[in-house]
Amino acid sequence: MSSQNNLPVGRARIARNLRDWRATRGMSQDKLSELSGFTQAYISQIENGTCNIRIDSMEKLAEVLGIDLVELLVR
Amino acid sequence: MSSQNNLPVGRARIARNLRDWRATRGMSQDKLSELSGFTQAYISQIENGTCNIRIDSMEKLAEVLGIDLVELLVR
Repeated sequence: MSSQNNLPVGRARIARNLRDWRATRGMSQDKLSELSGFTQAYISQIENGTCNIRIDSMEKLAEVLGIDLVELLVR
Repeated sequence: MSSQNNLPVGRARIARNLRDWRATRGMSQDKLSELSGFTQAYISQIENGTCNIRIDSMEKLAEVLGIDLVELLVR
């Protein structure tokens, strides 16, 4: 069973915001993977909140999505 | 020589915002270390941008400082 209810706040925000922005840009996980250099499995982990992501990786994702870094952390 | 000029944007923002908020709260690095459970050396690394900090650690610092997570990443 997958649930985001028990995730730490930061992970949950990044997971939701990444999914939302990826959808807004019309990007599949595969496409984001290709553009960021991260594996699709890693993207999936971030979107599931199972990854304790580092700031440099957040910055790379924001860059590829064309958004400011804070957009990944807004509530 | 220590310079923040060549730091990745995210690290530079967190470094500056952490220093600023710690000053606002009148907390020494030692005090923040005590309250967060992180070593003073680790706090120092974050404030120098030499640390590729993870989201869970950012969340802990924001909690101790009594700020929202996004405050650590605003430009």
